[in-house]
Amino acid sequence: MGNVLTNPRSDRVKAVRALSRRSVRSRTGEFLAEGPQAVREAVRFRPELVRDVYVTADAAQRHTEIVDEAREARLFLHEVTPDVLAAMCDTETPQGIVAVCRVLDVPLDAALAALPPTALVCVLTHVRDPGNAGTVIRGADAAGADLVIVSDASVDVYNPKVVRSTVGSLFHVPIVTGVPVEQVLAALRAKGVALLAADGGGQTLLHQVDLTRSHAWVMGNEAWGLEPEVRDACDEVVRVPIYGHAESLNLAMAATVCLYASAEARRSLTG
Amino acid sequence: MGNVLTNPRSDRVKAVRALSRRSVRSRTGEFLAEGPQAVREAVRFRPELVRDVYVTADAAQRHTEIVDEAREARLFLHEVTPDVLAAMCDTETPQGIVAVCRVLDVPLDAALAALPPTALVCVLTHVRDPGNAGTVIRGADAAGADLVIVSDASVDVYNPKVVRSTVGSLFHVPIVTGVPVEQVLAALRAKGVALLAADGGGQTLLHQVDLTRSHAWVMGNEAWGLEPEVRDACDEVVRVPIYGHAESLNLAMAATVCLYASAEARRSLTG
Repeated sequence: MGNVLTNPRSDRVKAVRALSRRSVRSRTGEFLAEGPQAVREAVRFRPELVRDVYVTADAAQRHTEIVDEAREARLFLHEVTPDVLAAMCDTETPQGIVAVCRVLDVPLDAALAALPPTALVCVLTHVRDPGNAGTVIRGADAAGADLVIVSDASVDVYNPKVVRSTVGSLFHVPIVTGVPVEQVLAALRAKGVALLAADGGGQTLLHQVDLTRSHAWVMGNEAWGLEPEVRDACDEVVRVPIYGHAESLNLAMAATVCLYASAEARRSLTG
Repeated sequence: MGNVLTNPRSDRVKAVRALSRRSVRSRTGEFLAEGPQAVREAVRFRPELVRDVYVTADAAQRHTEIVDEAREARLFLHEVTPDVLAAMCDTETPQGIVAVCRVLDVPLDAALAALPPTALVCVLTHVRDPGNAGTVIRGADAAGADLVIVSDASVDVYNPKVVRSTVGSLFHVPIVTGVPVEQVLAALRAKGVALLAADGGGQTLLHQVDLTRSHAWVMGNEAWGLEPEVRDACDEVVRVPIYGHAESLNLAMAATVCLYASAEARRSLTG
């Protein structure tokens, strides 16, 4: 590492801090990954996207594996004072390390062309809460989904809170953003992907659906669910059965149960 | 309803507000259910526990079904001004209705005696985050669990944030609290309930476990998981398989996936 960056009021620090604003992210095509988990996954899985890594002396000692991997990947690594790091961050406890990354979403056409023959896709539409969106992306990654599509009317996936909630999964699974949901559904259908609306009012129970074919789970807003026209555009409206007296599951729980039912069906298929 | 309560500094209001403190809940044996969802479930499922319902004129109009059910159950129903309601509450947006309830946890022995022949139990130990605890209780209810046991080293289930996160499920499923986890595990084992530790480091995969017998899922702390001695005291250490590159699932997601795997096994058993 070169000179230590010590001035929390420098233009560079201000430029990094400005990435907490959506308009700045859109204009620059960059976003900030905060904390060791997100930075490690960025450096490990998508080093070509990492523009700069900023780390305090303390954090560099605690996370030598990240620093070593960043050096091996010949990334720009900068030591900063704790004041500078805090000034760069949205988080209250940034844990000493952040990375400025280029946005990583892929065009819808390219993403669909890259799908395997039996694909598992997760579509989020009108999801507004950053924590929910991030948790669903994490769940999709864990369940082995091939693609996550976050439609235009949802929270920005590069929002610092979304990035944190994915705990690195943002760098693991291909993501499409900003496409209107109607266009997403039409393109998936044209590709032969069955459209399964996840909805507490669905007529089909989760265990009644064929999850061994190519399919996409379509998830709606955390409070009011899917828009009627989105639900109607899907092939099946599926509900997670409620065995007790709970009224419903929340979005992240329902999404995880559906995605893991798909993962289990794929697993039993391949043995 | 009688006279409208208008004084936010009255002794009654102070006594209700004090229920946000654990020491006061312990001493009085009461807790506060906030918001229409929690109050409706309390009135509907456990009216014998409800001491007083407090509602603003606006909320009484919006939630006539709750007011009607409370009247039919001959509960004490008090109209209050919005100022009084706000002064009673922990929540910033209490939505106009709260109920003071008696605590509802049951003794461990009685709870075990009431279990069905093939039981599904959820044990939480060292779970500290109120939102996580509440979400797992909600998931256990949804999956049809027969009993939830929250061991002594966990967050208080009557904490206002836990109560809110259960979205009424606290009133649906029998709950045991405050017993040391070693004692819980010994009692479950004596009852013939298989002890399944949910742990990301487990050797057994979720789909390899026999979930058609009586079993308990034992879940640990959201950050560091189960204590080694708790894990060792269980019959099997089970992990939810990760199909993608995610490091793990969070507590609530892992718990929901495990509980729903149990629900699905029970469903296929009964047809």
